[in-house]
Amino acid sequence: MPGLQPPLKPAHADDAAALRLERYMHAHIPLVTQMQVTVARFDGAGLRLTAPLAPNINHERTAFGGSLASLMTLACWGYLWLLLEAEAGLHIVVKEAKVNYLKPVTGELDTLCPPPDAAELEKFRDMLARRGKARIELSAEVRQGQLVAARYLGSFAVYREA
Amino acid sequence: MPGLQPPLKPAHADDAAALRLERYMHAHIPLVTQMQVTVARFDGAGLRLTAPLAPNINHERTAFGGSLASLMTLACWGYLWLLLEAEAGLHIVVKEAKVNYLKPVTGELDTLCPPPDAAELEKFRDMLARRGKARIELSAEVRQGQLVAARYLGSFAVYREA
Repeated sequence: MPGLQPPLKPAHADDAAALRLERYMHAHIPLVTQMQVTVARFDGAGLRLTAPLAPNINHERTAFGGSLASLMTLACWGYLWLLLEAEAGLHIVVKEAKVNYLKPVTGELDTLCPPPDAAELEKFRDMLARRGKARIELSAEVRQGQLVAARYLGSFAVYREA
Repeated sequence: MPGLQPPLKPAHADDAAALRLERYMHAHIPLVTQMQVTVARFDGAGLRLTAPLAPNINHERTAFGGSLASLMTLACWGYLWLLLEAEAGLHIVVKEAKVNYLKPVTGELDTLCPPPDAAELEKFRDMLARRGKARIELSAEVRQGQLVAARYLGSFAVYREA
């Protein structure tokens, strides 16, 4: 599958790709602009998105659970978007998500979607090439300092335009 | 527990309570305003929230998964807020959520959180009275016409101020 980009090495940050994703998200998903989402880094550690607290605050003066879920959804979806960017006509949609809210987030929202397991990625790649559709699970975490504040596990479907 | 409101009968819509919740959410959660959330109805069938598609649209021209998750979180959280409104000093926070995205939403986002099971509510009420903290599960659905487009199951913690 020529359209699937190889995973990056950790030291290699692809700033141009990060900027393309940021522009695409802001152009097509108005809530991304309202949440003030930034693509902070895309490298071998995964895709990191951040957003300031103020537009994402809740009645407890901490990050709104819906904002955290949205940011982690975007991190996983964005990771796939970057992986599949070179191939035209693919749709990437979230099918299931599980979110654990572990600690209140009192500052910047900062999430990382790490690369999926290499064997899972290989299975996904094969299935997409053979059938024109495939599913893959991706995870994301929101950290506050050294602590994990929220965990996300999402199942994403990718399919080729009919 | 004098602060816990009895469930409403289906025919009886509490428009004043719905308006109080809508004002509270818009005053304290900026994303609610950006999403243009309306408290459509609060009665014995549960709490119904709606939001227009335009501010919640995604790259596929359907409802953004993060908006759907946010709206269903708000419906469940809002239901508890209304149930506990008369009692001061309580915090209501989401701890876990599971979301199933079944069909793309191509029009207004429309979600209903039905009342929880009476026995579960009774256990929750007892625990909160005895310990000053309790957990309860609430569900919500997004419908498009007669079809369920998304399902949500959330676990919420309620605790008294220390």
